[in-house]
Amino acid sequence: MVREIFRQLPNEDVVYFGDTGRFPYGTRSKESIRHFSLQAANFLQEQKVKMIVVACNTASAQALDYLEERLKLPLLGVILPGAKKAVSSTKNRRIGVIGTEATVASGSYPLAIHQIESDIKVFSQPCPLFVALAEEGYLQKKASYLIAADYLAPLKKQKVDTLILGCTHFPLLKTVIQKVMGPKVTLADAAESVARETKAVLQNHGLLNQGPRAGQHKFFVSDLPEKFRRLSRRFLKYPVDSVQKIDINRY
Amino acid sequence: MVREIFRQLPNEDVVYFGDTGRFPYGTRSKESIRHFSLQAANFLQEQKVKMIVVACNTASAQALDYLEERLKLPLLGVILPGAKKAVSSTKNRRIGVIGTEATVASGSYPLAIHQIESDIKVFSQPCPLFVALAEEGYLQKKASYLIAADYLAPLKKQKVDTLILGCTHFPLLKTVIQKVMGPKVTLADAAESVARETKAVLQNHGLLNQGPRAGQHKFFVSDLPEKFRRLSRRFLKYPVDSVQKIDINRY
Repeated sequence: MVREIFRQLPNEDVVYFGDTGRFPYGTRSKESIRHFSLQAANFLQEQKVKMIVVACNTASAQALDYLEERLKLPLLGVILPGAKKAVSSTKNRRIGVIGTEATVASGSYPLAIHQIESDIKVFSQPCPLFVALAEEGYLQKKASYLIAADYLAPLKKQKVDTLILGCTHFPLLKTVIQKVMGPKVTLADAAESVARETKAVLQNHGLLNQGPRAGQHKFFVSDLPEKFRRLSRRFLKYPVDSVQKIDINRY
Repeated sequence: MVREIFRQLPNEDVVYFGDTGRFPYGTRSKESIRHFSLQAANFLQEQKVKMIVVACNTASAQALDYLEERLKLPLLGVILPGAKKAVSSTKNRRIGVIGTEATVASGSYPLAIHQIESDIKVFSQPCPLFVALAEEGYLQKKASYLIAADYLAPLKKQKVDTLILGCTHFPLLKTVIQKVMGPKVTLADAAESVARETKAVLQNHGLLNQGPRAGQHKFFVSDLPEKFRRLSRRFLKYPVDSVQKIDINRY
């Protein structure tokens, strides 16, 4: 996600915050997710950002409206861009959604899809183990195939032709998911659309930076900066040089 | 663990706190684990407990000494009871330890074992996916066997005859772990020893309650009390009637 933003917006400075001290969000309550998300947004505001991309499906699903009520700067979640992409891809009008427990429980994807096209059928499936498998580098092992086969069976049965990868970790498991779903199913990963919409939001607000200077990228986490730096190549597909740890409970 | 404490200490009131809002600890830094553990201990002290059992291997491994420096009441961790049990079980003097990344990185088990018997060989292996597999009920599935076979291969190669289940979640995967290790390897689960040592600590401090009244059990969590109540049968092997949510960041 962030790599795609860097690519499409090469002149923008980007401040990244990863809540590694309280990760994962997907198994927490709406109340906790909202509280954690607001703390993260407060930190980013202190960094004087001009807009915030909520680049986590769980936070987008459970906290975007809550943040919108409390913050004045433009916000972009990842649910609507993902929903749009899936709607433009489906031919049989049957879309599958996989995500964390919290994302699926929120019903945000079916809601967003039905706001675009009311007669599309949406089938959702939480895949909580995918987060841990991606974290631990179990990207193409047999165990991952077996777990994916369990989780995805109900969606295959419903003959979806498009599957939304509704968690930032899931694109890492693309090979496994595609193999289980079969080659005819389109996997919708929102990264490219989110970056494009980020640009559109900045343009609409007259905030787009088109100067010649290359954007600077700063990385912050709430725990284990060294581990984040080490894993950044796998997760962000971007080598991160320096990461600072912050005390998120101050926000 | 807590069920065994209830069983061996039927007349004691027990206050249980589960940090479900910041779980899992095993992938966090020592600094975070210490901070979280102290907050939990502060909450329990406010509940006027007479001793604290740190019934989490990660917190015991990374924070027990830190808590001991800061608290006046008796504390019991789970590392030493587990180490003692393994030492009394091993015949070939080769012990394996499995746990979270943080527990293994701490080196607490080898240290505790070598304090008891200096010439025992200890082989440690982090098994981070076991936590998620246990959480998601993947207790005897083929995927769990494959993951266990990956993780446990180095310990089998070292011909350990005793394996410490160094994480409160791992006894749930006992069947899988035993099958992979083979029937001759003893799995050392500290629950029974911890409960016995809890009783001994109370006796030594003249704090043991021997009155006729049955102990009362109170459960607190930092997030999702309803989910905890639902899962308590699997995790605590004890049906929990009521669970209260607290704001752990107040402590």
